[in-house]
Amino acid sequence: MSPPPPQRGFPNAEYEVRAERAQRRMAEEDLDAIVVTSPHNVRYFSGFASQFWESPTRPWFVIVPRSGGAIAVVPEIGAPAFEATWIDRVLSWPAPQPEDDGVSLLADALSQMERRSGRIGWEMGRESIIRMPIKDFDTLRAKLPGLEFVDGSPAIWSLRMVKSEREIGHIRHICQLASHAFEALPDCLELGDSELTAARKLSAELIARGADAIPFIAACSGPGGYDQIIVGSRERVLDRGDVLFIDLGALYDGYSCDFDRNFAFGPLTEGAAKAHDAVWRATEAGIGAARPGVTTTDLFNAMASVLQSEGSKGLNVGRLGHGLGLQLTEPPSNMPGDETPLTPGMVMTIEPGMEYAPGKMIVHEENVVITEDGCELLTRRAPREMPVIGG
Amino acid sequence: MSPPPPQRGFPNAEYEVRAERAQRRMAEEDLDAIVVTSPHNVRYFSGFASQFWESPTRPWFVIVPRSGGAIAVVPEIGAPAFEATWIDRVLSWPAPQPEDDGVSLLADALSQMERRSGRIGWEMGRESIIRMPIKDFDTLRAKLPGLEFVDGSPAIWSLRMVKSEREIGHIRHICQLASHAFEALPDCLELGDSELTAARKLSAELIARGADAIPFIAACSGPGGYDQIIVGSRERVLDRGDVLFIDLGALYDGYSCDFDRNFAFGPLTEGAAKAHDAVWRATEAGIGAARPGVTTTDLFNAMASVLQSEGSKGLNVGRLGHGLGLQLTEPPSNMPGDETPLTPGMVMTIEPGMEYAPGKMIVHEENVVITEDGCELLTRRAPREMPVIGG
Repeated sequence: MSPPPPQRGFPNAEYEVRAERAQRRMAEEDLDAIVVTSPHNVRYFSGFASQFWESPTRPWFVIVPRSGGAIAVVPEIGAPAFEATWIDRVLSWPAPQPEDDGVSLLADALSQMERRSGRIGWEMGRESIIRMPIKDFDTLRAKLPGLEFVDGSPAIWSLRMVKSEREIGHIRHICQLASHAFEALPDCLELGDSELTAARKLSAELIARGADAIPFIAACSGPGGYDQIIVGSRERVLDRGDVLFIDLGALYDGYSCDFDRNFAFGPLTEGAAKAHDAVWRATEAGIGAARPGVTTTDLFNAMASVLQSEGSKGLNVGRLGHGLGLQLTEPPSNMPGDETPLTPGMVMTIEPGMEYAPGKMIVHEENVVITEDGCELLTRRAPREMPVIGG
Repeated sequence: MSPPPPQRGFPNAEYEVRAERAQRRMAEEDLDAIVVTSPHNVRYFSGFASQFWESPTRPWFVIVPRSGGAIAVVPEIGAPAFEATWIDRVLSWPAPQPEDDGVSLLADALSQMERRSGRIGWEMGRESIIRMPIKDFDTLRAKLPGLEFVDGSPAIWSLRMVKSEREIGHIRHICQLASHAFEALPDCLELGDSELTAARKLSAELIARGADAIPFIAACSGPGGYDQIIVGSRERVLDRGDVLFIDLGALYDGYSCDFDRNFAFGPLTEGAAKAHDAVWRATEAGIGAARPGVTTTDLFNAMASVLQSEGSKGLNVGRLGHGLGLQLTEPPSNMPGDETPLTPGMVMTIEPGMEYAPGKMIVHEENVVITEDGCELLTRRAPREMPVIGG
């Protein structure tokens, strides 16, 4: 059985603290405000929880000013939902209105704000997008010549990177729920299943156990390993000698897990078994190394040294794990050059993988949260031996 | 039973025709190329089918030049998958590489293209986003002073708006599958279910019947109606007198349905029954009006006249339906001012709704494809009488 789910939604205090942290950062960077437009940043600062982002029609804006409360500038279709959040000031317009979809309303709100530096942080940098037509963004800039639009993404990511206890509770829950679903899967899988069928069986387990949605599920397979891990769940039928890999990002109340499991069909080949053992041990090394003060690059090195000594021929993934939270992947990255120091509250994936022969990869992944003196495993550790289906 | 699913994936000819249509349009608009970065446009021109877009870490680019084949400029993690598409020329770099994530490689590819006008179409306008850090987009512009970056979104949408027979087959399939799942739902729902439970029950039905994913499911409810339709699936418990609305965007092989159904808990109140009948008849009017030559604004008027005569107090949605395809909502919009002429192959939602009393909305929706002489209903028509649960 999965443990009982944590309470959905966060109290206003959670968002007030987020805004205060943002405001401290704005003071440091001399920003007058941060404006967010993309789904996870809007949710982070407002609590607005909707899948309506799937519709590209309407832009949405949340302004977090350097002092005072946040302001939502949103389409009328979303006004009742935003009025139910912690945000007091909700401005709306009758969208869609292609000739002026929120641009004038947002410009008015920004021009009425207290001005100090005139610098406004936007989602302009790393792993960030501006979710509005860039033509409208240019129009907005032209309407506000006295304001400077600068990159607010380092500030935003510095906040989101360190999770609160409530956020960790949500991530722990979806990790546990998904771990149990993965553990139940060998009893459901059989030779002759397709990748699609395997993904469907796991999805059914996840929904029955209480996952809200499954934005990412990639079932990839091949004889003794797979050549890629991002296009999955095809009609390929699983036969003896195959390894099935399923990578999963399921959600509970907006928070994601991101880990994978491998399943052997028929007896596991010797090469795949050896590679799996190497990535399993590299995962142990990563979990063992994860603690405050260590950097993401140290974490990479701890895993990479195991993989290299086991004959890894490289990996097309480019890193060995990353941050995790509202999104499946978030900064930082466990890789050379990243050098981000780990601090308590950071949730990270530990994700070593190797190509042990041409086109044959084995990838493994667990999720941890950095604690005061080490880390806590949020997932249930994968068995050292790969489960065998139809052996 | 749902009908058998159409074959997954499209032959190369589908993508060749898309590129040829794009190239004709580029000649008309004097563009040298169109560059796409966002999930559905990349899939449209390449066939790359992945949920890995959930990770914000890496940008992806497909160049469709005015003549010759398309070029993919993608992270190494995606190279094997892109090499399996119809695209012959796949360039890749070892991402993530924050200091230069594909920017130089893309700049080289663009600078080597045959130059006529020097105008490159980007996703800059309506219902479009540029999915890369805007700082990198600015760097790219600076690297290519001889090229003019212009809005390619009207060209892109003009192509995507008119579906091929294969695309229509996929949309018809997911509409039928979801219709059957909705029809099975009254037998599963009961008084005391929460919105979340109702959404979970429908999700389980959808997955069992063969839907690949459910990016959008909003179960919203309230006494005699609901006050919004985009934040759904909360813990609110369904009681006598409630109307439960579920709006759904489920996928089959990348193509979406987008329609809703309403369910009455306990006996339906008189006001809600009257409003439901009005929106049901407005839907009939919309379906009856949909044919080539008629505009999206005519379609709006056909529905709005029924709603107005039935005492609609308006609607915060801003339109009465829209295009549908790879995305839950696509241009055009059924609304005043849109004035897009309907042509065969356009897939549209017919989506009238009304607020009949403060905070009490009833919204209805079906999906159609425009044919040579009218339209074909892709969904199975909702019953005129709202199904009653626990009556």
